[in-house]
Amino acid sequence: MKLFFGEIFENSAILNEEESHHFAKVLRGKEGDLVHVTNGKGKIAEIEVNSISKKVVEGKIIDLKTEFEKKNYYLHIAIAPTKTMERLEFFLEKATEIGIDEITFLQTYHSERKNIKIERIEKIVQSATKQSLKAYLPKINDLIKFNEFIKLNFSDFEKCIAHCETDIERVPLKNILDKKPKKILILIGPEGDFSKDEIKTSESNNFLGISLGQQRFRTETAALQAVFGTDWELG
Amino acid sequence: MKLFFGEIFENSAILNEEESHHFAKVLRGKEGDLVHVTNGKGKIAEIEVNSISKKVVEGKIIDLKTEFEKKNYYLHIAIAPTKTMERLEFFLEKATEIGIDEITFLQTYHSERKNIKIERIEKIVQSATKQSLKAYLPKINDLIKFNEFIKLNFSDFEKCIAHCETDIERVPLKNILDKKPKKILILIGPEGDFSKDEIKTSESNNFLGISLGQQRFRTETAALQAVFGTDWELG
Repeated sequence: MKLFFGEIFENSAILNEEESHHFAKVLRGKEGDLVHVTNGKGKIAEIEVNSISKKVVEGKIIDLKTEFEKKNYYLHIAIAPTKTMERLEFFLEKATEIGIDEITFLQTYHSERKNIKIERIEKIVQSATKQSLKAYLPKINDLIKFNEFIKLNFSDFEKCIAHCETDIERVPLKNILDKKPKKILILIGPEGDFSKDEIKTSESNNFLGISLGQQRFRTETAALQAVFGTDWELG
Repeated sequence: MKLFFGEIFENSAILNEEESHHFAKVLRGKEGDLVHVTNGKGKIAEIEVNSISKKVVEGKIIDLKTEFEKKNYYLHIAIAPTKTMERLEFFLEKATEIGIDEITFLQTYHSERKNIKIERIEKIVQSATKQSLKAYLPKINDLIKFNEFIKLNFSDFEKCIAHCETDIERVPLKNILDKKPKKILILIGPEGDFSKDEIKTSESNNFLGISLGQQRFRTETAALQAVFGTDWELG
């Protein structure tokens, strides 16, 4: 099964411009071919291609699935980008495969990386979505300052901050997940952890300090632990 | 804290040859420096360096810990190497960080990769062990044919094979972990899954078919899921 991003209408669907190009020029697809199209918002249509132009591949819908493999929770991870982009990219791929809904990049006090290539990150997440045959494309938010992000409105979320300060109270993530939250937001800090000030600011904005086990993990490992744990308990 | 591999004696410890070279030449370490040495078998010693030669750095033990952060389970993963070594290497690093005791590489019917560079793999696991400050070095076993491996003696292990054949009975890994096994062996197949013959052979050798969730994961993602899940339930 080959999955493309596109738009889905009542009886027909089209592939996005880049996907149309890929279908026509790289894969040398033909009229009459059967392919799958997703809108990245839960719909997957099987279509029979009936017209191929330079910019648009279009087809008739044969089969349509809505809310395809919808998860019963919403996971938003806000993470300080790692120094090595490769590690962050691997996290993004695995998180997309396992199940994540939204990712925000945080600029924190101890962040070593001050910029990210958002287009490249979007490509990785799109590619992992297609490869793992998912109908929901995770939402990606560009870098934002910790102090700005923390003040945004997440009123219907279980809000958590994973940190390693042993002298500030933390509860295991497991305890949070036992309450079966519908929406969960988890902040993952940089290699040098969140600063004490950041932890305090988050607490005064109703974030709960959590721990991910006895060990001190690398940033991307902590983030993976959060994604796997949430899927393990709520999936 | 800087951790090196070496040998630990009653009152003193030495760094391995390569580690000695690294200490003396790369890090420009000096007599009187305090460093940590592990034997990879549970011991970690803090030493004060008192002699540096070309091949051996030696020091007096100041502090010694045995069975350092010992886990209460033993996890052995036998995995068909992925086509892209990068994906396998990332798995090895994450598994070492989270907790794994033994890794075997399987040559299966659908394996695309017929060889691995065992020295490179050992280096990655050693480096991840040091980076995450662990005193137990996972054991690495070279590539072995599926049919040979399956007949080895693992009598005190809970033996599992993760596969995607929906018409062969499988139980969720969670159910196995609920029994709190002390030793667990999990087989992870190649991108094209284990063959039906392999699954049957494993069953006649008392392996239990398990599933890792609703989805079909990439090889390295399935393996990570097994490592994270085991740590989540038994760690």
